[in-house]
Order: sequence, then structure tokens, then C-alpha cells
Amino acid sequence: MTLIKKPVTGMKDILPAEMEIRNYCISVIKQTYAEFGFQEIETPCVESIENLTSKSGGDNEKLIFKILKRGEKLKLDEASSEADLVDGGLRYDLTVPLVRYYSNHENELPTPFKALQMGNVWRADRPQKGRYRQFMQCDIDIIGEPTNLAEIELITATTTTLGRLGFKEFEIHINERRILKAMAVYSGFPDEKFDDVCIILDKMDKIGLDGVKKEFLEDGYSAEAVEKYVGLFEGMNAKTSWSEKLDWLEQKLTEAGAVADDVIPNLRSTIETVIKVKQADFKMVFDPTIVRGMSYYTGTIFEIRMPELGISCGGGGRYDGMVGKFTGRDVPACGFSIGFERIILILMEQHFEIPGKREKVAFLLDKGLSEEQTAQALIKAGEERKAGKSVLVVRMNKNKKFQKQQLSDQGYTSFEEFYNN
Amino acid sequence: MTLIKKPVTGMKDILPAEMEIRNYCISVIKQTYAEFGFQEIETPCVESIENLTSKSGGDNEKLIFKILKRGEKLKLDEASSEADLVDGGLRYDLTVPLVRYYSNHENELPTPFKALQMGNVWRADRPQKGRYRQFMQCDIDIIGEPTNLAEIELITATTTTLGRLGFKEFEIHINERRILKAMAVYSGFPDEKFDDVCIILDKMDKIGLDGVKKEFLEDGYSAEAVEKYVGLFEGMNAKTSWSEKLDWLEQKLTEAGAVADDVIPNLRSTIETVIKVKQADFKMVFDPTIVRGMSYYTGTIFEIRMPELGISCGGGGRYDGMVGKFTGRDVPACGFSIGFERIILILMEQHFEIPGKREKVAFLLDKGLSEEQTAQALIKAGEERKAGKSVLVVRMNKNKKFQKQQLSDQGYTSFEEFYNN
Repeated sequence: MTLIKKPVTGMKDILPAEMEIRNYCISVIKQTYAEFGFQEIETPCVESIENLTSKSGGDNEKLIFKILKRGEKLKLDEASSEADLVDGGLRYDLTVPLVRYYSNHENELPTPFKALQMGNVWRADRPQKGRYRQFMQCDIDIIGEPTNLAEIELITATTTTLGRLGFKEFEIHINERRILKAMAVYSGFPDEKFDDVCIILDKMDKIGLDGVKKEFLEDGYSAEAVEKYVGLFEGMNAKTSWSEKLDWLEQKLTEAGAVADDVIPNLRSTIETVIKVKQADFKMVFDPTIVRGMSYYTGTIFEIRMPELGISCGGGGRYDGMVGKFTGRDVPACGFSIGFERIILILMEQHFEIPGKREKVAFLLDKGLSEEQTAQALIKAGEERKAGKSVLVVRMNKNKKFQKQQLSDQGYTSFEEFYNN
Repeated sequence: MTLIKKPVTGMKDILPAEMEIRNYCISVIKQTYAEFGFQEIETPCVESIENLTSKSGGDNEKLIFKILKRGEKLKLDEASSEADLVDGGLRYDLTVPLVRYYSNHENELPTPFKALQMGNVWRADRPQKGRYRQFMQCDIDIIGEPTNLAEIELITATTTTLGRLGFKEFEIHINERRILKAMAVYSGFPDEKFDDVCIILDKMDKIGLDGVKKEFLEDGYSAEAVEKYVGLFEGMNAKTSWSEKLDWLEQKLTEAGAVADDVIPNLRSTIETVIKVKQADFKMVFDPTIVRGMSYYTGTIFEIRMPELGISCGGGGRYDGMVGKFTGRDVPACGFSIGFERIILILMEQHFEIPGKREKVAFLLDKGLSEEQTAQALIKAGEERKAGKSVLVVRMNKNKKFQKQQLSDQGYTSFEEFYNN
């Protein structure tokens, strides 16, 4: 029987050249986050189906790869729906597993707990260019820190990492769930429509303020509420700096009693402090249009925007209520995820040169070599490896010139030939 | 709803202390194998169910976590067996995926192709101490090298890596599938019983030669064949060195025409050369009793034995026929897998100290700190991080003494306190 050569639909094999870039990025990321005191952890790729379908994952819950029950647990005859067949699934993000992990090991972990996770997640999205059904996520989270020290450290750590990977002139867009909410309340949108309001607002990037306004009216919201809401964005658009925008918005919302007193000052302090302590070339942007899909966010939310890419390249925010879903007791939490695959895509397209690559040497062994001569060549290879070189030992081909050309293409810069003489 | 805190049955959360050791081992392994010219690759964790159930995986095929078909493909009403419900599964090893990968990308890869894979695999084994249903494998393979240069490089690379991880006085047990076969043929066992003969032989470690003999007789094999077979082991046991054992066996098997002329000289040359070029403190042991479970092996087979552990701690061998299952054209291949989880287990039990760990400093920030003072502390943290230290910035607790004690326990060796003054 001939077997299937292709990877499963929507997943990909990673070739050595990409793997080198991925490994380089992983090492820069791990080193930088370690400097910030983040501790790496790992959870199984498989989670209980109950945890994956607890409404924390938004639309991702529709995209789960589900795992069949095993042995006696699988009762095919009695199964009336999919749910009867499965007891686990592949994780669709690293946040649900982190919160489960923290709940499980709380007593063994420090407070605050600064976690780094790098691992694959799976989503059965429609396959498209550059988007795969298995992809790596790279998350840092701080659990147990209620103040904006968490946000400041997360943004500083993430941007320092991106800077060390060679990225510059990028932007961190920042917003607050409670400001989003206050703007809707202030305008007179009904409370229960908040999620729908956000869904339309989220389209601002693509359809502009006029398009957003049109959609609100088409969806039957009161003209007065829509006008007031749009007015807030127009008011902010008329201001140039993030601080002027925030000042203007604060006056409006506070006057109307729509937002708690500390929310906007807290966001202001986060932005100001990040600007003071940052170690990379990026801009902080207060962006009242970013929403972040997941419903679990409760405070600050943020996204990375790269000039190389129109879309978000990572993001995160505060989710103070999620640990409580496991333990019954809320613990403050905040996280930032780098869009690892997008970073790799950009670096691949830029033909990124990995700094400090080791010298690659190829030893070509003629077929006539005696056992003793082969051993001598291998001993020499061992010495050069000890000296920090990468040494490939291969049999010499009949077409030696072609073989050397191929090895040059793979980055081998010097050759040594061994003959029986 | 309260969610499930525990990981799924048989899989484990990895705590930061273990993760540090894992990361250290991974970096030593990757660096050493890179010096030997191995290139890292990655395949998806999910494989087509057809590839996973193609009889290459032996008993592991019974332990597959199977993934439910999605959307319209899942026809629950029409399903009469498990096979109708699934189209993928979690890989149970890295060899089947490697061979698929090689078949898929042959034209983009050099010959010979030296691959390194580090990745998780899943087997629904009965959970037991130190044995998990998700675990990391670490494989190197050389595809396209027919001579024992492959075996020599694989064994040298693997043992050099183990040496750098601090292991010594371990053993590499080596054997040959064709010698195993020849010994059975020489003794007069029927050809079709070869796999059953191997299953009994594999118990030698536990039940000894007498036990093996007893089982053969109980299973109804002819007393003459059993006597002749046992005689071969007794003959070898009477010799001290690996070379004397091989010489004695060669004489017996060659005389009877039971083995091709080049098989034993080839194994001898492999052992001799490894001993000449080795860069770690280990012993080569010709061990005619090792079998290796997988039926795909066609030539040399080997295992790592650690003095710390009674059992095998990794192994591999030559599997020249497997690529042909995908491409219809056989390509020589040989691989060596380190039992990564067992290595980690040994190091954890030895309270392994990671060399060259960075200095860990904790900054404690009093709650009364102004925004400006907080920024100053964070700028200072940035400077110390640049200087190579790991700096944790946390709010000062009311019980500062207890907090510092906890941080000391986590490896923080110096503290700086920041107050509003």
C-alpha cells in the first residue's frame, strides 16, 4: 500500500530553513522573557472537552479538533450526538490551559506568577495562505497582580523582544474594555447589546466611521444613540495626541457618570510609564476602536501593529474573572501573546539573516577509504566540532563538483576531501 | 460552572523547575546535533489515520488518540464503526511522520538528509509512574546513507550529547536484525515464527537464558532447535569481549550459510570505529538479545542503557524499507532516539544543577511609589536586564520578610527595595 505523502489538510511541514529562523526567534524570546522574570511552563496539548467548551473561547470553540473516547467509554450504538463520542480536544489557545494550570498548582506557584508559554494550538479554520490549522502561540501572563504594573511589564517585555528580533517603528494599540462599555452606555445603547455594538465597532479598520454608522442604523439602533456614539469618535479624531484624546473622552464620560473615576487615569499612567521605560522603537497609540474578540477581557486590551502587515500581529489584555471559573475565587490576570507565525512570515519574506551562525564545514569521504582512515576523518570532525564548527561527514559522490555546489547552496563554506592514499 | 482543574488522564502539567531542566537539555541536544550537521524539522502533531494505521507502528497503533471528522464529513447516523468517525490521529512516534515528510519533500532536501526532530507524541498507554500519554521524543535520522557511516555518526552524535549532559559509564547495546534472523534460521526455527521467537528472546533480561529456554519448549518448538539456539547464546556467553563473541558467532553462522558474508564484518567495523572516535565515557556492547519492538527495522539496532536505570533509555536502528512504503522506491534510513523523558527523570532525581544560570534579582516596589518613581525603578530594571541579569519587578507585600524568603526559595539572590522618599 502506498501511503499519504501530504500533511493533513491545513497543517504544514516545516523545512530546515524556516526551522532555523523559528529556533532563533524562540531563543531570543525565551532569553528576553527570562530576563523579565517570566518562568516557562507547559500544559498538555489535549484538554478536557468541558474546559474547551465553557464559553471562554468565543468562536474558537466552534473550531475544536475533538478526540474520540477510547475503549469501553466509546459507546457508538448509544451515541446520539457528537458530544457522546468525545472527551477531549486539542487546545485552541494557551489561555484556558494556563488558567486551569494555575488553578491546579496555585500552592506551588509564586504570587504574582509570571508565566511564559510557547506551544502549538489547533483551530479547524478554513485553510488559507499563511494561516494554518496548527500554529505556535507565544504567551506571557502575569497572574495575581491587580495594578497596571502587570500591563506595563507585559508591554515592555513584548516590545523589547520584538526590538531584539529587529522590528522597529511598530505600534502598540491600547484600549480598555470598561471605556468601550462606558462609551456605549454614555451613548444610550442598551446594556444587553454591548457585544453586538463591539462587533460592528470592530469593523472600523475596514469600513471607516461612516460605514460603522451606516451598519448601526441598518441594525435598527436609535439614531440618537448612533449620533452620540459617532460623535465621541469624531471628537477624539479631532485631537492629535493620545493624551488629548483621553482627556477629552474622560471629560465627556466622567461628566455623564458613565465610567469609574480611576479607569482613564489608570490607562493614562500605563501609557505614560511604558513610554518612559521602553527599550524598543515603537509608538503607543490609544485606539478606542480596538475590541479584541474574546469576551473574557475585563480591562486593558492591546494589540501589536506592524508597518509590514495591515493586521494585528499579537495582542492581549486583562482577564480578571477567568481564574474564578476554575476556583470560584477571582484572581487578577493579564496576558500578552505574540503572533509568532506572523513574525516568522515577515522574517521569511525579508530573507532574515540569523546573526552569529556557526561555520559549516563538509568532509567528503572517498569510498575507497579504509576503516582506519574513516576513523581518522571522524576524529578530525570531532575536533572541529569541539572548536564550534558544524561538520557534516558524507560519502563523496561520483559527481563531486555537483555535490559541492549543492552543499554550498546549503551554507557549507569549506570542504575537506579524504582519500585512500 | 466550575471547570476541571486536573490535566486529562495520563498527561501532565510541567512546573517551572522541571521546565528549566528540559530547556537546558533541549539546548544542549540541539547545539550538539547541529555541530554534527543535523537539520531540525517539524511535522504536524496530527497525521492521516491511514498513515498511522499502516502496520509500521506495531503495538503503538492500538494506542492512537483518534480525531473526529469535522462538519459534513461526520455522518454519525451512517457510522457503523470507529473507523467511520475519524480521519486523523495524534502521532505515536516521529518516525512515521519523518518518512512521510521525506517522501513529500525529497526534491527540496539534500542527500543524505540528516534530520533532527524534537516533539511530542501521544500514546494511550495505561498511566503509570513516570510514564505519560503525552511525552517528548528526540530523534535523529540519516536518510539516504547506505553504509555504516550512518550508524557511526548517529551513535557518536547521541553519545556526545549524553556526555555533555553529564552522563557517563553508560552502555550502547548493539545488535543486527539479520543476525537475529540468522540465529533463528541456523537453529532450525521456522521462518514464519521469527517474530514469535523474538518476543520470547526479548524477555532474556527478565527471565534469563533458562527462562527463555523453558518458554520455547512450552510453546512447542522442537527440542533440537531450542537446544541449538540456546547453545549459540551459551557459546557467546563463554567469551569475554564483544569481538570474541562476534568472531565465534560468525564462524558458526557463516559455516552454516545462515548469514550473508558482509553482515558481521559490517557490525564489527561499526563497533570498532565508534570506539575509536567516541567523545564520551561509554561502552559498546554487542548484545545478541536485543530485539527492538518495531518490525520495520532491517539491519543494525541499538539501545542506550544507563547505570541509573535498569531499562533502555533510548534506541534506534536501520529501517531501509520504510520510505518505499510512501514512494514505492526504497531509500536507506537509520535513526537514533533519545528517551528524553527518562533523561529528564534521571536529572530531576539527581537534583541536577543547570550550569551558567543567570543571576536573579528582585525589585520590591512599595505601594506608595509615584508614577515617576515606578518608571525610575523599571528603567533601572531594564539596565540590569541588559547586563544579563534576570530582574523580577513586584509590588512589596505587607509581610516583606516572608516575601523575600519565598523569592529566595525561587533562586533570587539579591533584592532592592523602592520607597516613596
